[in-house]
Amino acid sequence: MINSAASLTTTKIKILQRSSSPAWIEQAIANLDTILLDHSHCERKAAGVAINLMFRYPAHQKLVRQLTAIAQEELEHFEQVNQWLEKRGIPLAPLNSPPYFSKLKSQIRHAEPDRLVDSLLISAIIEARSHERLGLIGEHCPDPELAKFYRGLMASEARHYGIYWVLAEQYSDRANVESRLAELGEYESSILENLYHEPRVHS
Amino acid sequence: MINSAASLTTTKIKILQRSSSPAWIEQAIANLDTILLDHSHCERKAAGVAINLMFRYPAHQKLVRQLTAIAQEELEHFEQVNQWLEKRGIPLAPLNSPPYFSKLKSQIRHAEPDRLVDSLLISAIIEARSHERLGLIGEHCPDPELAKFYRGLMASEARHYGIYWVLAEQYSDRANVESRLAELGEYESSILENLYHEPRVHS
Repeated sequence: MINSAASLTTTKIKILQRSSSPAWIEQAIANLDTILLDHSHCERKAAGVAINLMFRYPAHQKLVRQLTAIAQEELEHFEQVNQWLEKRGIPLAPLNSPPYFSKLKSQIRHAEPDRLVDSLLISAIIEARSHERLGLIGEHCPDPELAKFYRGLMASEARHYGIYWVLAEQYSDRANVESRLAELGEYESSILENLYHEPRVHS
Repeated sequence: MINSAASLTTTKIKILQRSSSPAWIEQAIANLDTILLDHSHCERKAAGVAINLMFRYPAHQKLVRQLTAIAQEELEHFEQVNQWLEKRGIPLAPLNSPPYFSKLKSQIRHAEPDRLVDSLLISAIIEARSHERLGLIGEHCPDPELAKFYRGLMASEARHYGIYWVLAEQYSDRANVESRLAELGEYESSILENLYHEPRVHS
């Protein structure tokens, strides 16, 4: 039994309103193979999200430059996670998504620049939550090599959420970004209050 | 005046039914800045196509592995082309696509595995045409540094079309792939018979 996920991570969480529950880490560690497979899908999706944003805003120089670097890194991680799947004999297979992503996406406002700002902030929040959760796996994973791999990913996830956050400030003023981030962050934590019945990185 | 594009490239063209017309290379060299901008969009699109295929076939191990590598390389090229844009003071801006891509896409059959085979073969053909045309730019570009950059890209484009072609053979037999490739290749050459009025890599 794990008492408190909050005490398990030393990262100062700025974007996340509430830490992951002990129930999530227990579910994750008990289903590591599924989490690894889901993690692979998450990395591919993260690359897809970055590229889609570049498609939508092809003339936003800074956004394009920074999201290119993020997409490259997500693809690198995707490859690394897939090597882990191979090593553990887990075949690539489709997995249904938890409601987390579609619920977050439903919060994106339609008019510009709100749409862009919300898209960036939601990516920032997803990266921040991934950072927290991959860190928890890195702490609790019984396979020391895999644990090390997870801890190694944390720096990139932290960098990514920083990049998305700072980019959002390019398209709105800081006060607006902060209040919107608080709103979206509150919503994100509320989604995770009820643990999804299938083990996922974002269950 | 350039007499024959066919004589301009030493590459043995296996996928392309007909070489690019001299009119295309003249149009391209006369509008290098637009071609560079369009080329940037092409690299981003190519990364997007590879990632979309991985989304559609997440359990096709070999496809996923190879398209991850292609997507990574396309993003690298995207970054490099964008550095050229910056160097030449060309701002990132949207550009409408020539009809080439939507026409090719219209040829994709709906039932599986035809859909996958056609998608792979069309990507192979696009890469082969890019290989030919970037090679022509590499030969005729008046800026020797930029010409060198274009010649440097050719090896990857050739590798990419080979990978797409060989992948198609995983999902159909060789004879089917060859006859379909000949059909699609014929169609592709026919699209390019009338030069599109705006300068594009695939005009």
